[in-house]
Amino acid sequence: MVTGGLGFIGSNVACRLADLGADVLAVDAMMANCGGNLANIAGYEDRIKVDRTDLSQDANLDRLVEGRQIILNCAGRVAHYDSMVNPIADLDSNVVAQVNLLEACRRSAPQAAIVFTSTRQIYGKPQNLPVDEQHPLRPVDVNGINKLASEHYHQLYHDIHGLHVVSLRLTNTFGPRMRIKDARQTFLGVWLRAVVEERSFEVWGGDQLRDFSYIDDVVEAMLLAATVSACWGQIYNIGGTPPVSLLALAEQLVQIAGTGRFERKVFPAERKAIDIGDYFADDTKFRRATDWSPKWSLEAGLAAALDYYRRYLDCYV
Amino acid sequence: MVTGGLGFIGSNVACRLADLGADVLAVDAMMANCGGNLANIAGYEDRIKVDRTDLSQDANLDRLVEGRQIILNCAGRVAHYDSMVNPIADLDSNVVAQVNLLEACRRSAPQAAIVFTSTRQIYGKPQNLPVDEQHPLRPVDVNGINKLASEHYHQLYHDIHGLHVVSLRLTNTFGPRMRIKDARQTFLGVWLRAVVEERSFEVWGGDQLRDFSYIDDVVEAMLLAATVSACWGQIYNIGGTPPVSLLALAEQLVQIAGTGRFERKVFPAERKAIDIGDYFADDTKFRRATDWSPKWSLEAGLAAALDYYRRYLDCYV
Repeated sequence: MVTGGLGFIGSNVACRLADLGADVLAVDAMMANCGGNLANIAGYEDRIKVDRTDLSQDANLDRLVEGRQIILNCAGRVAHYDSMVNPIADLDSNVVAQVNLLEACRRSAPQAAIVFTSTRQIYGKPQNLPVDEQHPLRPVDVNGINKLASEHYHQLYHDIHGLHVVSLRLTNTFGPRMRIKDARQTFLGVWLRAVVEERSFEVWGGDQLRDFSYIDDVVEAMLLAATVSACWGQIYNIGGTPPVSLLALAEQLVQIAGTGRFERKVFPAERKAIDIGDYFADDTKFRRATDWSPKWSLEAGLAAALDYYRRYLDCYV
Repeated sequence: MVTGGLGFIGSNVACRLADLGADVLAVDAMMANCGGNLANIAGYEDRIKVDRTDLSQDANLDRLVEGRQIILNCAGRVAHYDSMVNPIADLDSNVVAQVNLLEACRRSAPQAAIVFTSTRQIYGKPQNLPVDEQHPLRPVDVNGINKLASEHYHQLYHDIHGLHVVSLRLTNTFGPRMRIKDARQTFLGVWLRAVVEERSFEVWGGDQLRDFSYIDDVVEAMLLAATVSACWGQIYNIGGTPPVSLLALAEQLVQIAGTGRFERKVFPAERKAIDIGDYFADDTKFRRATDWSPKWSLEAGLAAALDYYRRYLDCYV
């Protein structure tokens, strides 16, 4: 079972599971602006069952979780600025929905391994770099507060109710099937779209250092987390490429694409207030537990993403 | 304005404000088992206005907060075990309600000082004693997760929206107007009731060390937090008496009362799982900021509480 299974990360993991021969149920409410897109499972329609239940609106999700071996819990809202404008919507999707799901698992799927897609956002502005799992948790926006509460719930349902839960704190993740219509699912989506459409994009600030995970590496990490039982009950950072500045990233993207251009802009005040500045992860703990390491370089990942959106642009704009 | 204004802490602060001549609005939904009790404002009916709005069910609380100078935000559920049984009810009261309130303040009461009654529960099992505000935050039950999220919201609305917010992390608070019907609002309530009714009570475990705040000291701390502008934007522990073991507390209570007896019991397993063990606060930060210190000894506080429930037992059982 994959929650948010028609969204960016969820659909990638659902398709991978289908390729592996699994019986896959993708649950996705297709909420506006959240990345759910039927095009994400094109070619997989006969191998992925789809259920449109909104997890936040249904306290009886037992029918969905019963008998499932693995639950990849990718559902949620990710847009930081939207969360400040409508905190209750973010709370519904990122906390209420998660509690409903965990309660159903407690009652009806205690056997399932549950992987929760947490986020680096819960650390807030890093006090030191790279950031490991011991770093203080000081979310700087509503989305971060709600994702942290949800991670706490996941850990609690492991500690108290014995569910097999793993939380992965992801960094900027990119690749095929992501939302590129606007910046709600990372700024990199808008950049990719602009480059493919041969338009100019904006770099806000530009000095911020970030690491980037290519989606296939994240999917691999999620499947390991679900199946390596030593991971259950643990929280792990998932990092990616060596950190680059956003300016260097923009230059690399334009160079790889052979098209596009960008302008540097001052960070808009209302976004700057909730920006976390530099971030890159120390993911030693997960590498040691699973022998995982990212296989994709930033260059190869950007090239693969560009190739995907050049072919399927119509489905994402 | 006092949210949870008919409950234990809320009614005490509302009555104190009325004594000081303030125009007081007590908002309280009188949720079952949460401590709201009209007897708590007996004698103050003409000086405290009451509104029965459920903050979690109303996204437009602007009419309540408009023009208020001070908002003492005491509404919420406090029962740890109940929160594990019905997490969504706890989430509604302790997070959704708080977000609705903060959103109304952002729109319609940016001038108000807001004091949030947070809790030591958000620290989880202490790693070191006494616990200061830098201690890691690792809630061990649903109530702790939700109170932590709510505290994060309060801080965010200070940091981003400029509201004048102070969070006070209270420890075991006791005194007149608390709920004593059962153990939902600290075990001490049941103990007090048993002693007044000359029945036996149970001490679960008994070696746990705790500190106790008498309600009048907490009310004083809340009024200082609201009015000393240097406190706004800060988070403070509020401590109390020197730590005592629960066994020593039980012995002291029986001795002061001259009635009652108790039995030591093994901690029930489902409660032990969410117990935090020893706790006592380092509240140096708040003492330095305000010159506050607790005025009530444990002995004097217990005597005052016993005297209150002997007179008004009928209103609380």
